[in-house]
Amino acid sequence: MSDTPILIVGSMAFDDLELPSITARDVIGGSATYSAFAASTFTEVRLVAVVGDDFPEAPLAAMRARGVNTEGIERAPGKTFRWAGRYDRDLIHRTTLATDLNVFASFSPKIPPSYRETPIVLLGNIHPALQLDVLEQVDRPELVVADTMNFWIQGEPKALEKLLKKVDVLIINDEEAREISGIHNIRKAAADVKKRGPKAVIIKRGEHGALLFDEMGMFFAPGFPLEEVVDPTGAGDSFAGGLVGHVAKELEATDRIGPATLRHAMLFGTATASYCVEAVGTERVASIVERDVETRMNEIRSLFHLP
Amino acid sequence: MSDTPILIVGSMAFDDLELPSITARDVIGGSATYSAFAASTFTEVRLVAVVGDDFPEAPLAAMRARGVNTEGIERAPGKTFRWAGRYDRDLIHRTTLATDLNVFASFSPKIPPSYRETPIVLLGNIHPALQLDVLEQVDRPELVVADTMNFWIQGEPKALEKLLKKVDVLIINDEEAREISGIHNIRKAAADVKKRGPKAVIIKRGEHGALLFDEMGMFFAPGFPLEEVVDPTGAGDSFAGGLVGHVAKELEATDRIGPATLRHAMLFGTATASYCVEAVGTERVASIVERDVETRMNEIRSLFHLP
Repeated sequence: MSDTPILIVGSMAFDDLELPSITARDVIGGSATYSAFAASTFTEVRLVAVVGDDFPEAPLAAMRARGVNTEGIERAPGKTFRWAGRYDRDLIHRTTLATDLNVFASFSPKIPPSYRETPIVLLGNIHPALQLDVLEQVDRPELVVADTMNFWIQGEPKALEKLLKKVDVLIINDEEAREISGIHNIRKAAADVKKRGPKAVIIKRGEHGALLFDEMGMFFAPGFPLEEVVDPTGAGDSFAGGLVGHVAKELEATDRIGPATLRHAMLFGTATASYCVEAVGTERVASIVERDVETRMNEIRSLFHLP
Repeated sequence: MSDTPILIVGSMAFDDLELPSITARDVIGGSATYSAFAASTFTEVRLVAVVGDDFPEAPLAAMRARGVNTEGIERAPGKTFRWAGRYDRDLIHRTTLATDLNVFASFSPKIPPSYRETPIVLLGNIHPALQLDVLEQVDRPELVVADTMNFWIQGEPKALEKLLKKVDVLIINDEEAREISGIHNIRKAAADVKKRGPKAVIIKRGEHGALLFDEMGMFFAPGFPLEEVVDPTGAGDSFAGGLVGHVAKELEATDRIGPATLRHAMLFGTATASYCVEAVGTERVASIVERDVETRMNEIRSLFHLP
């Protein structure tokens, strides 16, 4: 475990999940929740999010037990953000059945003074203006990692443009890279996105893995083929959490973050995410320990080991 | 270049291609054509296929110039097999517009006596009974690699079952593995297919790469992200050709084919296929030299190089 803290800002939610194997209601979810559980495998996490008065204490206690500082979680009057979705049999395509923003609709991240000096910031997928607002509330971090989505790319291009200039690593998927750049070819699209600000662009490709584009070139972290995938919800957020978690450890050990750090971190993110999808919701990601990650890392390394 | 020959049996065709960038008619294609051009980058190829009296001499001469023995290409009265297809903008999904088997409908591979002793056999996607028939006409090869498709999986399960017992390496895609096994999870599906005979199963995942399952475990060859993909036709066949091409070289150098050989061969196949898709039809794959493959191999290796 490292002592280098990570600030994570994003959503906390109830998810109603229709999975091929099971239908589950009131599952604790949200980008910040998954990322926080994932990152807390490696280091201290400082969480900023909003929940309603219906949100239970148990998951917050479970987070604190893993070293997540929950001081920045605001409890607002009203209901917690709720998402309902149905997955296809292949667990890749999903249909959103309902999105009730509830208290998340008026979320305005307030960074507690004790969080101000946090070297690594992970900005989950919220309005880019709010992501910018978070960056204005903290002392200049060593690394800013951000996620976004097509909704903001289409609806808030100006705010997103400003955000991209302040982001070190942008994590998006193929389609989002194409929407930002207007370019279909993924390599050219990533190069275009990188020109808009981020030093590195990570393209998530679901079960197929993730591609990193940075000053050193391209790097590919393959998705780990699991014998059983139960619930892909939160895989991307767990990937991001595992990634920044490893960066925090490396920053503490070596006092720098370079292309090598990011490449190893891609694999740590992959390993963390591969656990997440083995159970419903945060059930598995909430209990990963570093030894688990090491086990999976060895399996992932063997995937591209040339004897 | 190696002197260890490879026997390739499959289709030769005219393709009519509707690509996002261009529409091209009478493009020389077919599984055996692509595989032969690809494999001839590395070693001698012995080709068995059928063409009609409308098939031009030029591509046959081009093959011979690359060390492809065309003695086994039968010229039958009638028209050559023709396939017409339209690719979506993403170059992943394609729609078959027409399939005219023509002389390919009554193809019965006749292995010339001079081909009988060929240590490596690549059986392109033809009727499994014909694939079996080829194996009966040759002396026991060191390695038999086969492709198949959903049409035979559904229509000729008995013949396919017999074939699988005689195949060392089966190359299929995700869906074909699921159809053969009746299992959705790709890792479990591959394990099931492997139990039916092949020592190794390679699952092609298009632009995302290919997974190898064998006695040593899993290995993943990532698809190489290109700046421009023009025509994916024949990528899988070029992959197979590049793969057996490298195996032939290794067999000559070390007198054995093991899990290490196959893992390296997966990358050689990937490198070869990545050239194929850069131009329409066989235009690029027909001119690759080993130095080209080495260049791309270095790029592919850097994709998963951990500094």
